[in-house]
Amino acid sequence: MSTVKMVEYEHASPEVKAVYDDLMARKGIDFVPNFWKTVASHPPTLIRLWRDLNEVMAPGRLDRLTKEMIAIAVSATNGCNYCINSHTAAAQALGMDAEMLGELMAVVGMFNLTNRMAEGYQVESDVLPTL
Amino acid sequence: MSTVKMVEYEHASPEVKAVYDDLMARKGIDFVPNFWKTVASHPPTLIRLWRDLNEVMAPGRLDRLTKEMIAIAVSATNGCNYCINSHTAAAQALGMDAEMLGELMAVVGMFNLTNRMAEGYQVESDVLPTL
Amino acid sequence: MSTVKMVEYEHASPEVKAVYDDLMARKGIDFVPNFWKTVASHPPTLIRLWRDLNEVMAPGRLDRLTKEMIAIAVSATNGCNYCINSHTAAAQALGMDAEMLGELMAVVGMFNLTNRMAEGYQVESDVLPTL
Amino acid sequence: MSTVKMVEYEHASPEVKAVYDDLMARKGIDFVPNFWKTVASHPPTLIRLWRDLNEVMAPGRLDRLTKEMIAIAVSATNGCNYCINSHTAAAQALGMDAEMLGELMAVVGMFNLTNRMAEGYQVESDVLPTL
Amino acid sequence: MSTVKMVEYEHASPEVKAVYDDLMARKGIDFVPNFWKTVASHPPTLIRLWRDLNEVMAPGRLDRLTKEMIAIAVSATNGCNYCINSHTAAAQALGMDAEMLGELMAVVGMFNLTNRMAEGYQVESDVLPTL
Amino acid sequence: MSTVKMVEYEHASPEVKAVYDDLMARKGIDFVPNFWKTVASHPPTLIRLWRDLNEVMAPGRLDRLTKEMIAIAVSATNGCNYCINSHTAAAQALGMDAEMLGELMAVVGMFNLTNRMAEGYQVESDVLPTL
Repeated sequence: MSTVKMVEYEHASPEVKAVYDDLMARKGIDFVPNFWKTVASHPPTLIRLWRDLNEVMAPGRLDRLTKEMIAIAVSATNGCNYCINSHTAAAQALGMDAEMLGELMAVVGMFNLTNRMAEGYQVESDVLPTL
Repeated sequence: MSTVKMVEYEHASPEVKAVYDDLMARKGIDFVPNFWKTVASHPPTLIRLWRDLNEVMAPGRLDRLTKEMIAIAVSATNGCNYCINSHTAAAQALGMDAEMLGELMAVVGMFNLTNRMAEGYQVESDVLPTL
Repeated sequence: MSTVKMVEYEHASPEVKAVYDDLMARKGIDFVPNFWKTVASHPPTLIRLWRDLNEVMAPGRLDRLTKEMIAIAVSATNGCNYCINSHTAAAQALGMDAEMLGELMAVVGMFNLTNRMAEGYQVESDVLPTL
Repeated sequence: MSTVKMVEYEHASPEVKAVYDDLMARKGIDFVPNFWKTVASHPPTLIRLWRDLNEVMAPGRLDRLTKEMIAIAVSATNGCNYCINSHTAAAQALGMDAEMLGELMAVVGMFNLTNRMAEGYQVESDVLPTL
Repeated sequence: MSTVKMVEYEHASPEVKAVYDDLMARKGIDFVPNFWKTVASHPPTLIRLWRDLNEVMAPGRLDRLTKEMIAIAVSATNGCNYCINSHTAAAQALGMDAEMLGELMAVVGMFNLTNRMAEGYQVESDVLPTL
Repeated sequence: MSTVKMVEYEHASPEVKAVYDDLMARKGIDFVPNFWKTVASHPPTLIRLWRDLNEVMAPGRLDRLTKEMIAIAVSATNGCNYCINSHTAAAQALGMDAEMLGELMAVVGMFNLTNRMAEGYQVESDVLPTL
């Protein structure tokens, strides 16, 4: 249960309602997810995050599905339940199936393993990219 | 500096040398990276990791570049210097440029932010995918 | 559910009871929280943690509320549900409201983002404090 | 060393230069720190982060020094060297001395300990704040 | 609830059934734990993980109980509920009692504390092992 | 480089010197490691940590070497360079060789992998120990 009272649509201020309306329209859903109703307890954060998220998730050189799969990889590595559930659902809506998730999880697992072994042995970098 | 003595090619046992040879051939390089020379201090681990890595990184439903970018996302989230450097170089060799890395880092940063806010507010899941 | 049997007040040894009594008195509560009943399964740990916690949380150059907000920041970054709930309640009892928590979460989120970007890009330190 | 080429002031585009100028003016420094020169390799990220950071770090219900100390707590928990160095220097410039940092580190250490013990024992929440 | 449909024994392919049978035989249980039914949604991962796990957990220079306690230490540090529960049960079956877990948790807690303080103060290494 | 000035033996207060003397005697070394000289910038923390560490690391149901190997597992999972180096050296002095470290790292790697996969798939616990 959220540690703050979530802001329901009917009690929201006009600026919060504007974010809620835009969010439901863009996502094509008819409810406001708990994350956003929680963050709305601090309106400047709601507004900033919603603006940033749209900017970051817009398709660019990486497409939207790739971005959602990266979001799953980050959320699995951090162990954030809410985020894993919501990004998996979003990627599923964009076409990810169980086999693609299987490959994704295999990669996430593998590099969590090698990350800790490279650290645990204190291996020194010998490949230095400069893009 | 590695906490164990790295196994140099000329001192390697035949089974370790076989991995080194395969590794240099597949990667198209003429040296053995520090990670592998370190892990070779425990040959069963060297053999298992090299076998697993080839299996996990083989192109499937996700292509190789996408897998390397997921490896960067995991390594950045864990803060593993060696891994960040080596996967960034690998992705660069496969065509990732600074703009693609910029989008990748923007996504990684954004969801590290939302992961901690979803946890920090203890938001309850309201979207449950079943693939 | 705790992985060990929690030690209830009525079954506690005198040394455990002494910690429980002190804890309820100092916190002004009439029950022993689950964390402490769990840790009491290993009495030396109970005694050491309770002693340390009082020492660390005593108001000094930082006041008690600031210390509780730092505890929330750490717990949100680690994603520890029990800890987030209990430190948020403690900070609330000391006067933290939803707006202050909103600012706190905004800061926690922001620096989880920049932490991972600084790591992900392997940025080198160029500012070295010496206090 | 950054994995991308940093954008030096003299080679920056006008929109990047505008951020650099604002940044040096607000921070009262005459150089652009490595983090910002690195992030400038992806201008939309530079612009978004600088805007967000100013919004989040503006004094509100929490003062600037408290916010910098929370940034240190987050960065120490994540182990981000660049961030620890730069936020410690920033807090020092705002008046934090070694004794205050000592109290801060004691709190950060203590709750990293209790976080892992609460998780390690799977303690169930029994205190639920609703702000 | 798993984000993918778990593969029940009766619906499993022959290669998945073979892993399930081997797993129940080796563990001496008559059900397939959720982790394995979930991972079976991607058969190559199921097969690889089961093979690797048997290799890694076989008694060698470290005995099986020590390996399970290290698994608890890792899982507590990462805060993985499923893993903490299952490795604690496995260690308990091998003879770990509440007092041994108490010592283990005390060590895990203590070094999570010192890890963050060593990082938070940016302490430089002055002891370099070479095994 | 530490973010605070380290306290050298010759400039230490009597209470800090007492810890330094005890520490060098117990460890059988003739210098004060950087971690302790850094923590000494806040004497109450130095005194508390040294007292706690001796209590936690005393041989009990788990022997000293097992405790040092758990310290390595925690430090590798957190990626703390200083701690990995110093606990690896301590375990080496107690008899750990490259093969034992190899098994330890294999276990640490394996469960960092399974931890993230259990989280990434949101697997529900089906084994609940009660010690």
